[in-house]
Amino acid sequence: MADPAINSPDPLLKDELDIVIPTIRNLDFLEMWRPFFQPYHLIIVQDGDPSKTIRVPQGFDYELYNRNDINRILGPKAYCISFKDSACRCFGYMVSKKKYIYTIDDDCFVAKDRSGNDINALEQHMKNLLSPSTPFFFNTLYDPYQSGADFVRGYPFSLREGVPTAVSHGLWLNIPDYDAPTQLVKPLERNTRYVDAVMTIPKGTIFPMCGMNLAFNRELIGPAMYFGLMGDGQPIGRYDDMWAGWCTKVICDHLGWGVKTGLPYIWHSKASNPFVNLKKEYKGIYWQEELIPFFQSVTLPKDCTSVQKCYVELAKQVKEKLGKVDDYFDKLADAMLTWIEAWDELNPSGATKSAELPNGASK
Amino acid sequence: MADPAINSPDPLLKDELDIVIPTIRNLDFLEMWRPFFQPYHLIIVQDGDPSKTIRVPQGFDYELYNRNDINRILGPKAYCISFKDSACRCFGYMVSKKKYIYTIDDDCFVAKDRSGNDINALEQHMKNLLSPSTPFFFNTLYDPYQSGADFVRGYPFSLREGVPTAVSHGLWLNIPDYDAPTQLVKPLERNTRYVDAVMTIPKGTIFPMCGMNLAFNRELIGPAMYFGLMGDGQPIGRYDDMWAGWCTKVICDHLGWGVKTGLPYIWHSKASNPFVNLKKEYKGIYWQEELIPFFQSVTLPKDCTSVQKCYVELAKQVKEKLGKVDDYFDKLADAMLTWIEAWDELNPSGATKSAELPNGASK
Repeated sequence: MADPAINSPDPLLKDELDIVIPTIRNLDFLEMWRPFFQPYHLIIVQDGDPSKTIRVPQGFDYELYNRNDINRILGPKAYCISFKDSACRCFGYMVSKKKYIYTIDDDCFVAKDRSGNDINALEQHMKNLLSPSTPFFFNTLYDPYQSGADFVRGYPFSLREGVPTAVSHGLWLNIPDYDAPTQLVKPLERNTRYVDAVMTIPKGTIFPMCGMNLAFNRELIGPAMYFGLMGDGQPIGRYDDMWAGWCTKVICDHLGWGVKTGLPYIWHSKASNPFVNLKKEYKGIYWQEELIPFFQSVTLPKDCTSVQKCYVELAKQVKEKLGKVDDYFDKLADAMLTWIEAWDELNPSGATKSAELPNGASK
Repeated sequence: MADPAINSPDPLLKDELDIVIPTIRNLDFLEMWRPFFQPYHLIIVQDGDPSKTIRVPQGFDYELYNRNDINRILGPKAYCISFKDSACRCFGYMVSKKKYIYTIDDDCFVAKDRSGNDINALEQHMKNLLSPSTPFFFNTLYDPYQSGADFVRGYPFSLREGVPTAVSHGLWLNIPDYDAPTQLVKPLERNTRYVDAVMTIPKGTIFPMCGMNLAFNRELIGPAMYFGLMGDGQPIGRYDDMWAGWCTKVICDHLGWGVKTGLPYIWHSKASNPFVNLKKEYKGIYWQEELIPFFQSVTLPKDCTSVQKCYVELAKQVKEKLGKVDDYFDKLADAMLTWIEAWDELNPSGATKSAELPNGASK
């Protein structure tokens, strides 16, 4: 099957996508991405010391927000945006006015495909987002909408139309996204396996979403892409994208939207310090043993027909059920509500956006 | 992670695996498989006219059963084994005395990997079966037990031991496994995408299992690998492997075992006739719209602690809930019970084999 949207006259969606980059340093990494990113608008979220100047290579169209800007724009609600942690990137999602977001870390470079050609990661993400997902049944030949692929024998015809794709989760060659214990045990492991596949993560299956190379339909799922309270003053780090991924997947499952993972790859250049990571992660490693069963069993009521309503309900359940794991989740649940209030203030037209629950979508 | 079992002194499991081949013709296709299959014992299930002689290339160790043999061995229970349909292959699973089964169609040849080397499909299946599965959480870097891979950040440590793998579902280059309508619409489509991945199909997700290139742990899941009533005298064909796949996956989910799909590829040489296929399939295409929701929602009670008990319970529910779709399912439910009786007669020691339900396994 081929999706006609992919062959539209403006395949790059130039005016419909923002690239969000959290950073504490000069953005020289953009030089390598110039052929692919230069047509797009960048939203740079400067973390750490706001008096520092971040150099952006010439020729890129961007807006930059530092902590002073975040505090000014959000006022007392600014506390919900993490400081000294790349979780601050979600502020960029909130101030964007575009339909699609691509977010990438500044230590990620252009990867090469198996023929040695540069991979246009953005283009593959857009293909993923513009073609439907198939969360209700598994296709053994992976994404049936890719060229040369289709649904296999035994795939119900009633499900072949698919559903809208909300999230495209890309992968990483070279340095894999490992936790600190695995980094420590396998310091030399590199990911060299190029898996030429995109697939929909089945309904009811949550997954570890990495924020390094991630695209999503902001109009559909934006308000759920909150990266939580991490970094300065918080007891954990490196769970920002995981938190967003768990919340997002549960809400996509409820509203009948799809999440894809696989292509495109980026080249992840440098492993972060495993000792520093261990300090950030150790509570999360312990807590996730309770968080994941929570997200695996959470259900949202039928009257949650918008992402905002789903997210507010989820915050309520986080407070009720995870508050007893640690006080931190009490604070996080409050911050989730603050995030939604801030989102709706900055995106007034989106505040009432709602979805019709499709057949078979609600649990 | 690497599984020590894979590096065991007898990696080929030569005395623990039978290759089951259903056929109506001379087995010249084995010539191409000689380097890989010759050390193994073959069980050939001859379909159609039992007076015809099937030629097997010299040097292979095999036993061959034709319809007369099946009737003699099973007596009145022989009706549960399909005639004039490759579903008859499941008779081979029943008479095997080995721990593992690999089954392959006689129009499947050795595929080449991306470097142009012949793929030893059997070896990859054994790797899949000997390493654990991870049905309870999704790993974005695919099978974490493959060399060079591991669990990504955010994967719960309590689940990293994995669970036993019951099924390894391999794929097909060249002719993809399409249904008749897709064959008719896309007569020239060939699968050229070599996806270098093995993955566990998540718990709660059923899938379209193809019997063309399939391996399984017979000791674990054998009694559920019944290929149903197809072919001569039956209203459908080409749903034998699908039926086995739905039943198997539901039972694996209940008992806490894993099902993997992906590598290895075989080269599927020839598309079957789409017009003939359409005649065999059309009722199945209609019925599957009700069958799949049934299998997606079926639950097995806690006291079903063996595959046999699960299968008998499933037969009961098939009769109750699918009998109203068509009388055929009434007959099929009876045949499922007959199959289990025949299995237990031929495998008396396995009749009481049971599994301890692991944590988190039962729905």
